[in-house]
Amino acid sequence: MTSFSEQFRQELDQLMRWRRDVRHFRRDPVEGALIDRCLATFNLAPSVGLSEPWRVVRITTPAARAAALANFEAANTQALSGYSGEKAKLYASLKLSGMRDAPVQLAVFCDEETDKGAGLGAGTMPEMRRYSVVAAITQFWLAARAAGLGVGWVSILDPVQISRDLDMPDSWALVAYLCIGYAAHDMQSPELERLGWEDRRGHLPVIDR
Amino acid sequence: MTSFSEQFRQELDQLMRWRRDVRHFRRDPVEGALIDRCLATFNLAPSVGLSEPWRVVRITTPAARAAALANFEAANTQALSGYSGEKAKLYASLKLSGMRDAPVQLAVFCDEETDKGAGLGAGTMPEMRRYSVVAAITQFWLAARAAGLGVGWVSILDPVQISRDLDMPDSWALVAYLCIGYAAHDMQSPELERLGWEDRRGHLPVIDR
Repeated sequence: MTSFSEQFRQELDQLMRWRRDVRHFRRDPVEGALIDRCLATFNLAPSVGLSEPWRVVRITTPAARAAALANFEAANTQALSGYSGEKAKLYASLKLSGMRDAPVQLAVFCDEETDKGAGLGAGTMPEMRRYSVVAAITQFWLAARAAGLGVGWVSILDPVQISRDLDMPDSWALVAYLCIGYAAHDMQSPELERLGWEDRRGHLPVIDR
Repeated sequence: MTSFSEQFRQELDQLMRWRRDVRHFRRDPVEGALIDRCLATFNLAPSVGLSEPWRVVRITTPAARAAALANFEAANTQALSGYSGEKAKLYASLKLSGMRDAPVQLAVFCDEETDKGAGLGAGTMPEMRRYSVVAAITQFWLAARAAGLGVGWVSILDPVQISRDLDMPDSWALVAYLCIGYAAHDMQSPELERLGWEDRRGHLPVIDR
Protein backbone atom coordinates (compact mmCIF):
# COMPACT_ATOMS: atom_id res chain seq x y z
CA MET A 1 0.00 0.00 0.00
CA THR A 2 1.59 3.25 -1.14
CA SER A 3 0.97 5.61 1.72
CA PHE A 4 1.34 9.30 2.30
CA SER A 5 2.63 10.96 5.45
CA GLU A 6 0.65 13.18 7.79
CA GLN A 7 3.01 15.98 6.81
CA PHE A 8 2.14 15.52 3.14
CA ARG A 9 -1.56 15.50 3.98
CA GLN A 10 -1.20 18.79 5.82
CA GLU A 11 0.68 20.32 2.89
CA LEU A 12 -2.01 19.07 0.49
CA ASP A 13 -4.58 20.78 2.69
CA GLN A 14 -2.50 23.97 2.56
CA LEU A 15 -2.30 23.70 -1.23
CA MET A 16 -6.08 23.53 -1.46
CA ARG A 17 -6.37 26.49 0.94
CA TRP A 18 -3.98 28.63 -1.13
CA ARG A 19 -5.30 27.61 -4.56
CA ARG A 20 -7.15 30.61 -5.92
CA ASP A 21 -8.99 31.66 -9.04
CA VAL A 22 -6.51 34.33 -10.12
CA ARG A 23 -7.49 37.37 -12.18
CA HIS A 24 -4.46 39.60 -11.44
CA PHE A 25 -1.35 38.36 -13.23
CA ARG A 26 2.17 39.61 -13.67
CA ARG A 27 3.14 39.70 -17.33
CA ASP A 28 6.44 37.81 -16.86
CA PRO A 29 6.67 34.84 -19.18
CA VAL A 30 6.42 31.35 -17.74
CA GLU A 31 9.08 28.78 -18.68
CA GLY A 32 7.74 26.22 -21.13
CA ALA A 33 9.11 23.31 -19.10
CA LEU A 34 7.14 24.48 -16.06
CA ILE A 35 3.87 24.56 -17.99
CA ASP A 36 4.64 21.20 -19.61
CA ARG A 37 5.19 19.61 -16.21
CA CYS A 38 1.83 20.93 -15.00
CA LEU A 39 0.10 19.81 -18.21
CA ALA A 40 1.47 16.29 -17.67
CA THR A 41 -1.08 15.92 -14.84
CA PHE A 42 -3.81 15.65 -17.50
CA ASN A 43 -2.49 12.17 -18.28
CA LEU A 44 -3.00 11.17 -14.63
CA ALA A 45 -6.59 12.35 -14.36
CA PRO A 46 -9.55 10.00 -14.01
CA SER A 47 -11.64 9.70 -17.17
CA VAL A 48 -14.83 7.80 -17.82
CA GLY A 49 -14.00 4.48 -19.51
CA LEU A 50 -10.43 5.77 -20.01
CA SER A 51 -11.85 8.00 -22.72
CA GLU A 52 -9.35 10.82 -21.99
CA PRO A 53 -11.64 13.25 -23.82
CA TRP A 54 -9.67 16.43 -22.97
CA ARG A 55 -8.36 18.53 -25.87
CA VAL A 56 -5.99 21.35 -24.97
CA VAL A 57 -5.51 24.41 -27.18
CA ARG A 58 -2.84 27.00 -26.43
CA ILE A 59 -3.96 30.49 -27.43
CA THR A 60 -0.88 32.32 -28.64
CA THR A 61 -1.59 34.45 -31.68
CA PRO A 62 -2.69 38.07 -31.17
CA ALA A 63 -5.79 37.40 -33.31
CA ALA A 64 -6.91 34.41 -31.23
CA ARG A 65 -6.30 36.30 -27.98
CA ALA A 66 -8.16 39.36 -29.21
CA ALA A 67 -11.17 37.27 -30.27
CA ALA A 68 -11.33 35.57 -26.87
CA LEU A 69 -11.03 38.89 -25.04
CA ALA A 70 -13.78 40.45 -27.16
CA ASN A 71 -15.93 37.41 -26.45
CA PHE A 72 -15.43 37.86 -22.70
CA GLU A 73 -16.11 41.59 -22.84
CA ALA A 74 -19.39 41.13 -24.71
CA ALA A 75 -20.56 38.40 -22.31
CA ASN A 76 -19.48 40.46 -19.30
CA THR A 77 -21.41 43.53 -20.48
CA GLN A 78 -24.44 41.33 -21.01
CA ALA A 79 -24.03 39.80 -17.55
CA LEU A 80 -23.78 43.24 -15.94
CA SER A 81 -27.12 44.20 -17.46
CA GLY A 82 -28.73 41.41 -15.41
CA TYR A 83 -27.91 43.15 -12.11
CA SER A 84 -29.26 46.40 -10.68
CA GLY A 85 -28.57 48.84 -7.87
CA GLU A 86 -25.71 48.08 -5.49
CA LYS A 87 -25.16 44.62 -6.96
CA ALA A 88 -24.65 46.11 -10.43
CA LYS A 89 -22.21 48.66 -9.02
CA LEU A 90 -20.27 45.92 -7.27
CA TYR A 91 -20.31 43.65 -10.35
CA ALA A 92 -18.97 46.46 -12.53
CA SER A 93 -16.06 46.94 -10.11
CA LEU A 94 -14.97 43.29 -10.21
CA LYS A 95 -12.05 42.11 -12.32
CA LEU A 96 -13.39 38.86 -13.71
CA SER A 97 -10.65 37.82 -16.08
CA GLY A 98 -6.90 38.12 -16.39
CA MET A 99 -7.02 37.80 -20.16
CA ARG A 100 -5.20 41.09 -20.82
CA ASP A 101 -2.13 40.04 -18.84
CA ALA A 102 -1.89 36.26 -18.38
CA PRO A 103 1.10 35.06 -20.42
CA VAL A 104 -0.31 31.57 -20.94
CA GLN A 105 -3.90 30.99 -22.01
CA LEU A 106 -5.51 27.65 -22.72
CA ALA A 107 -8.90 26.71 -24.10
CA VAL A 108 -9.80 23.22 -22.89
CA PHE A 109 -12.40 21.26 -24.82
CA CYS A 110 -14.20 17.94 -24.43
CA ASP A 111 -14.40 15.67 -27.46
CA GLU A 112 -18.00 14.54 -27.05
CA GLU A 113 -17.68 11.96 -29.82
CA THR A 114 -14.41 10.26 -28.99
CA ASP A 115 -14.35 6.50 -29.64
CA LYS A 116 -11.78 6.05 -26.90
CA GLY A 117 -13.24 4.04 -24.02
CA ALA A 118 -16.00 2.67 -26.29
CA GLY A 119 -18.63 4.62 -24.35
CA LEU A 120 -18.08 2.73 -21.09
CA GLY A 121 -19.67 4.59 -18.18
CA ALA A 122 -21.13 7.31 -20.38
CA GLY A 123 -24.36 5.65 -21.55
CA THR A 124 -26.85 7.06 -19.04
CA MET A 125 -24.61 10.01 -18.13
CA PRO A 126 -22.87 11.28 -21.29
CA GLU A 127 -21.93 14.40 -19.31
CA MET A 128 -19.29 12.18 -17.66
CA ARG A 129 -16.94 13.03 -20.54
CA ARG A 130 -17.11 16.72 -19.69
CA TYR A 131 -16.78 15.88 -15.99
CA SER A 132 -13.58 13.97 -16.81
CA VAL A 133 -12.20 17.11 -18.42
CA VAL A 134 -13.09 19.12 -15.31
CA ALA A 135 -11.29 16.57 -13.09
CA ALA A 136 -8.18 16.92 -15.26
CA ILE A 137 -8.36 20.72 -15.07
CA THR A 138 -8.69 20.53 -11.27
CA GLN A 139 -5.53 18.40 -11.04
CA PHE A 140 -3.71 20.78 -13.37
CA TRP A 141 -4.84 23.72 -11.22
CA LEU A 142 -3.42 22.16 -8.05
CA ALA A 143 -0.16 21.21 -9.76
CA ALA A 144 0.17 24.74 -11.16
CA ARG A 145 -0.33 26.32 -7.74
CA ALA A 146 2.21 23.90 -6.24
CA ALA A 147 4.62 25.13 -8.93
CA GLY A 148 4.01 28.75 -7.92
CA LEU A 149 1.65 29.57 -10.80
CA GLY A 150 -1.81 31.08 -10.62
CA VAL A 151 -4.75 29.84 -12.68
CA GLY A 152 -7.99 31.68 -13.44
CA TRP A 153 -10.98 29.93 -15.01
CA VAL A 154 -12.98 32.31 -17.21
CA SER A 155 -16.57 31.21 -17.87
CA ILE A 156 -18.13 34.55 -18.84
CA LEU A 157 -17.89 33.66 -22.51
CA ASP A 158 -19.98 32.40 -25.38
CA PRO A 159 -18.50 28.88 -25.60
CA VAL A 160 -19.80 28.17 -29.11
CA GLN A 161 -18.22 31.37 -30.40
CA ILE A 162 -14.86 30.38 -28.87
CA SER A 163 -15.00 27.05 -30.70
CA ARG A 164 -15.91 28.77 -33.95
CA ASP A 165 -13.20 31.44 -33.63
CA LEU A 166 -10.60 28.73 -33.01
CA ASP A 167 -11.95 26.55 -35.83
CA MET A 168 -12.53 23.53 -33.61
CA PRO A 169 -14.61 20.50 -34.65
CA ASP A 170 -18.35 20.75 -33.88
CA SER A 171 -18.11 17.79 -31.54
CA TRP A 172 -15.68 19.58 -29.23
CA ALA A 173 -17.40 21.48 -26.41
CA LEU A 174 -15.54 24.24 -24.58
CA VAL A 175 -15.20 23.32 -20.91
CA ALA A 176 -12.81 26.02 -19.71
CA TYR A 177 -10.80 29.03 -20.77
CA LEU A 178 -7.79 29.19 -18.46
CA CYS A 179 -5.50 32.14 -17.75
CA ILE A 180 -2.13 31.08 -16.32
CA GLY A 181 0.87 32.98 -15.01
CA TYR A 182 2.48 34.34 -11.87
CA ALA A 183 -0.16 35.86 -9.59
CA ALA A 184 0.27 39.53 -8.74
CA HIS A 185 -0.82 38.80 -5.15
CA ASP A 186 -1.03 35.63 -3.11
CA MET A 187 -4.28 35.34 -1.18
CA GLN A 188 -5.73 32.71 1.10
CA SER A 189 -9.34 33.86 0.61
CA PRO A 190 -11.36 34.26 -2.59
CA GLU A 191 -11.49 37.73 -4.11
CA LEU A 192 -15.30 37.51 -4.38
CA GLU A 193 -15.40 37.06 -0.60
CA ARG A 194 -12.94 39.88 0.17
CA LEU A 195 -14.86 42.29 -2.06
CA GLY A 196 -18.24 41.42 -0.54
CA TRP A 197 -19.89 39.60 -3.46
CA GLU A 198 -20.51 36.34 -1.59
CA ASP A 199 -19.37 34.54 1.57
CA ARG A 200 -18.03 31.03 1.88
CA ARG A 201 -20.19 28.63 3.82
CA GLY A 202 -17.29 27.24 5.84
CA HIS A 203 -19.29 24.14 6.77
CA LEU A 204 -20.45 21.20 4.69
CA PRO A 205 -23.94 19.98 5.59
CA VAL A 206 -24.28 16.24 4.93
CA ILE A 207 -27.74 14.75 4.44
CA ASP A 208 -28.35 11.18 5.59
CA ARG A 209 -30.57 8.79 3.64
CA MET B 1 4.19 34.01 -1.60
CA THR B 2 3.28 30.69 0.00
CA SER B 3 5.43 28.20 -1.78
CA PHE B 4 5.68 24.45 -1.95
CA SER B 5 8.85 22.39 -1.98
CA GLU B 6 10.10 20.24 -4.84
CA GLN B 7 9.65 17.25 -2.52
CA PHE B 8 5.98 18.13 -2.03
CA ARG B 9 5.50 18.52 -5.78
CA GLN B 10 6.96 15.07 -6.36
CA GLU B 11 4.68 13.58 -3.71
CA LEU B 12 1.69 15.34 -5.28
CA ASP B 13 2.64 13.77 -8.59
CA GLN B 14 2.85 10.37 -6.87
CA LEU B 15 -0.57 10.93 -5.32
CA MET B 16 -2.06 11.58 -8.77
CA ARG B 17 -0.26 8.49 -10.12
CA TRP B 18 -1.65 6.27 -7.35
CA ARG B 19 -5.17 7.71 -7.31
CA ARG B 20 -7.44 5.08 -8.84
CA ASP B 21 -11.10 4.52 -9.54
CA VAL B 22 -11.60 1.66 -7.07
CA ARG B 23 -14.21 -1.06 -7.50
CA HIS B 24 -12.77 -3.69 -5.13
CA PHE B 25 -13.23 -2.69 -1.49
CA ARG B 26 -12.60 -4.32 1.84
CA ARG B 27 -15.71 -4.20 4.01
CA ASP B 28 -13.93 -2.77 7.09
CA PRO B 29 -15.66 0.34 8.35
CA VAL B 30 -13.97 3.70 7.92
CA GLU B 31 -13.65 5.99 10.93
CA GLY B 32 -16.09 8.90 10.75
CA ALA B 33 -13.37 11.44 11.57
CA LEU B 34 -11.34 10.27 8.57
CA ILE B 35 -14.25 10.75 6.19
CA ASP B 36 -15.10 14.10 7.77
CA ARG B 37 -11.57 15.33 7.22
CA CYS B 38 -11.72 14.34 3.56
CA LEU B 39 -15.16 15.92 3.16
CA ALA B 40 -13.77 19.18 4.55
CA THR B 41 -11.94 19.62 1.22
CA PHE B 42 -15.31 20.44 -0.39
CA ASN B 43 -15.17 23.79 1.41
CA LEU B 44 -11.82 24.54 -0.24
CA ALA B 45 -12.93 23.78 -3.80
CA PRO B 46 -13.32 26.43 -6.48
CA SER B 47 -16.93 27.23 -7.31
CA VAL B 48 -18.40 29.56 -9.90
CA GLY B 49 -19.29 32.89 -8.27
CA LEU B 50 -18.70 31.23 -4.85
CA SER B 51 -21.99 29.42 -5.42
CA GLU B 52 -20.80 26.28 -3.57
CA PRO B 53 -23.57 24.28 -5.29
CA TRP B 54 -22.49 20.83 -4.01
CA ARG B 55 -25.00 18.84 -1.95
CA VAL B 56 -23.70 15.68 -0.31
CA VAL B 57 -25.97 12.79 0.66
CA ARG B 58 -24.66 9.83 2.68
CA ILE B 59 -26.41 6.61 1.68
CA THR B 60 -26.72 4.53 4.84
CA THR B 61 -30.08 2.76 5.05
CA PRO B 62 -30.41 -0.73 3.53
CA ALA B 63 -33.37 0.49 1.46
CA ALA B 64 -31.46 3.40 -0.06
CA ARG B 65 -28.43 1.18 -0.79
CA ALA B 66 -30.58 -1.52 -2.36
CA ALA B 67 -32.33 1.00 -4.62
CA ALA B 68 -29.01 2.43 -5.80
CA LEU B 69 -27.59 -1.06 -6.45
CA ALA B 70 -30.71 -2.09 -8.41
CA ASN B 71 -30.40 1.12 -10.41
CA PHE B 72 -26.77 0.31 -11.29
CA GLU B 73 -27.59 -3.29 -12.20
CA ALA B 74 -30.39 -2.28 -14.57
CA ALA B 75 -28.21 0.36 -16.25
CA ASN B 76 -25.29 -2.05 -16.47
CA THR B 77 -27.41 -4.77 -18.13
CA GLN B 78 -28.66 -2.16 -20.57
CA ALA B 79 -25.09 -0.99 -21.27
CA LEU B 80 -23.92 -4.56 -21.90
CA SER B 81 -26.60 -4.98 -24.57
CA GLY B 82 -24.90 -2.21 -26.54
CA TYR B 83 -21.74 -4.28 -27.09
CA SER B 84 -21.27 -7.46 -29.10
CA GLY B 85 -18.69 -10.20 -29.66
CA GLU B 86 -15.42 -9.99 -27.75
CA LYS B 87 -16.18 -6.49 -26.44
CA ALA B 88 -19.43 -7.75 -24.87
CA LYS B 89 -17.61 -10.70 -23.30
CA LEU B 90 -14.98 -8.37 -21.86
CA TYR B 91 -17.59 -5.86 -20.64
CA ALA B 92 -19.51 -8.61 -18.86
CA SER B 93 -16.33 -9.65 -17.05
CA LEU B 94 -15.60 -6.17 -15.68
CA LYS B 95 -16.46 -5.18 -12.12
CA LEU B 96 -17.80 -1.69 -12.61
CA SER B 97 -18.98 -0.78 -9.13
CA GLY B 98 -18.03 -1.51 -5.55
CA MET B 99 -21.57 -0.87 -4.32
CA ARG B 100 -21.94 -4.28 -2.68
CA ASP B 101 -18.94 -3.78 -0.41
CA ALA B 102 -17.96 -0.13 -0.03
CA PRO B 103 -18.70 0.88 3.57
CA VAL B 104 -19.24 4.54 2.73
CA GLN B 105 -21.39 5.64 -0.21
CA LEU B 106 -22.21 9.21 -1.16
CA ALA B 107 -24.53 10.66 -3.76
CA VAL B 108 -23.29 14.12 -4.74
CA PHE B 109 -25.73 16.54 -6.33
CA CYS B 110 -25.58 19.99 -7.85
CA ASP B 111 -28.20 22.52 -6.78
CA GLU B 112 -28.91 24.04 -10.19
CA GLU B 113 -31.07 26.80 -8.70
CA THR B 114 -28.97 28.02 -5.80
CA ASP B 115 -29.12 31.79 -5.21
CA LYS B 116 -25.63 31.70 -3.74
CA GLY B 117 -23.19 33.61 -5.93
CA ALA B 118 -26.06 35.50 -7.61
CA GLY B 119 -25.38 33.73 -10.89
CA LEU B 120 -21.93 35.26 -11.38
CA GLY B 121 -19.99 33.34 -14.03
CA ALA B 122 -22.87 31.02 -14.86
CA GLY B 123 -24.85 33.15 -17.31
CA THR B 124 -23.52 31.84 -20.61
CA MET B 125 -22.26 28.57 -19.10
CA PRO B 126 -24.77 27.38 -16.48
CA GLU B 127 -22.97 24.00 -16.54
CA MET B 128 -20.27 25.75 -14.48
CA ARG B 129 -22.27 24.89 -11.35
CA ARG B 130 -21.97 21.17 -12.12
CA TYR B 131 -18.32 21.65 -13.04
CA SER B 132 -17.77 23.23 -9.61
CA VAL B 133 -19.19 20.09 -8.02
CA VAL B 134 -16.82 17.94 -10.10
CA ALA B 135 -13.84 20.07 -8.99
CA ALA B 136 -14.87 19.53 -5.34
CA ILE B 137 -15.20 15.77 -5.91
CA THR B 138 -11.73 15.68 -7.52
CA GLN B 139 -10.19 17.39 -4.49
CA PHE B 140 -12.05 15.00 -2.16
CA TRP B 141 -10.78 12.06 -4.21
CA LEU B 142 -7.14 13.16 -3.88
CA ALA B 143 -7.53 13.84 -0.14
CA ALA B 144 -9.15 10.43 0.36
CA ARG B 145 -6.32 8.65 -1.44
CA ALA B 146 -3.76 10.61 0.61
CA ALA B 147 -5.61 9.33 3.70
CA GLY B 148 -5.31 5.73 2.47
CA LEU B 149 -8.88 5.46 1.19
CA GLY B 150 -10.07 4.36 -2.22
CA VAL B 151 -12.84 6.11 -4.15
CA GLY B 152 -14.87 4.74 -7.05
CA TRP B 153 -17.13 6.97 -9.15
CA VAL B 154 -20.15 5.03 -10.46
CA SER B 155 -21.86 6.62 -13.48
CA ILE B 156 -23.69 3.60 -14.88
CA LEU B 157 -26.93 4.75 -13.29
CA ASP B 158 -30.17 6.48 -14.15
CA PRO B 159 -29.44 9.79 -12.39
CA VAL B 160 -33.06 10.96 -12.32
CA GLN B 161 -34.13 7.71 -10.67
CA ILE B 162 -31.44 8.14 -7.98
CA SER B 163 -32.80 11.62 -7.18
CA ARG B 164 -36.34 10.30 -7.05
CA ASP B 165 -35.45 7.30 -4.85
CA LEU B 166 -33.66 9.61 -2.41
CA ASP B 167 -36.50 12.16 -2.51
CA MET B 168 -34.24 15.03 -3.56
CA PRO B 169 -35.55 18.39 -4.88
CA ASP B 170 -36.15 18.52 -8.65
CA SER B 171 -33.52 21.22 -9.00
CA TRP B 172 -30.75 18.96 -7.69
CA ALA B 173 -28.93 17.05 -10.44
CA LEU B 174 -26.92 13.94 -9.59
CA VAL B 175 -23.27 14.50 -10.47
CA ALA B 176 -21.67 11.44 -8.89
CA TYR B 177 -22.35 8.30 -6.89
CA LEU B 178 -19.19 7.60 -4.91
CA CYS B 179 -18.10 4.35 -3.27
CA ILE B 180 -15.50 4.87 -0.54
CA GLY B 181 -13.49 2.52 1.65
CA TYR B 182 -10.17 0.71 1.94
CA ALA B 183 -9.13 -0.66 -1.44
CA ALA B 184 -8.63 -4.42 -1.64
CA HIS B 185 -5.57 -3.86 -3.85
CA ASP B 186 -3.36 -0.86 -4.48
CA MET B 187 -2.64 -0.34 -8.17
CA GLN B 188 -0.67 2.24 -10.09
CA SER B 189 -2.47 1.58 -13.39
CA PRO B 190 -6.20 1.71 -14.20
CA GLU B 191 -8.08 -1.59 -14.08
CA LEU B 192 -9.59 -0.88 -17.53
CA GLU B 193 -6.04 -0.74 -18.89
CA ARG B 194 -4.84 -3.90 -17.10
CA LEU B 195 -7.85 -5.86 -18.33
CA GLY B 196 -7.47 -4.71 -21.91
CA TRP B 197 -10.53 -2.47 -22.31
CA GLU B 198 -8.60 0.66 -23.26
CA ASP B 199 -5.06 2.04 -23.13
CA ARG B 200 -3.90 5.32 -21.70
CA ARG B 201 -2.53 7.80 -24.20
CA GLY B 202 0.49 8.66 -22.06
CA HIS B 203 1.07 11.87 -24.01
CA LEU B 204 -0.90 15.10 -24.13
CA PRO B 205 -1.09 16.64 -27.59
CA VAL B 206 -1.37 20.43 -27.37
CA ILE B 207 -2.81 22.34 -30.31
CA ASP B 208 -1.53 25.86 -30.99
CA ARG B 209 -3.78 28.66 -32.21
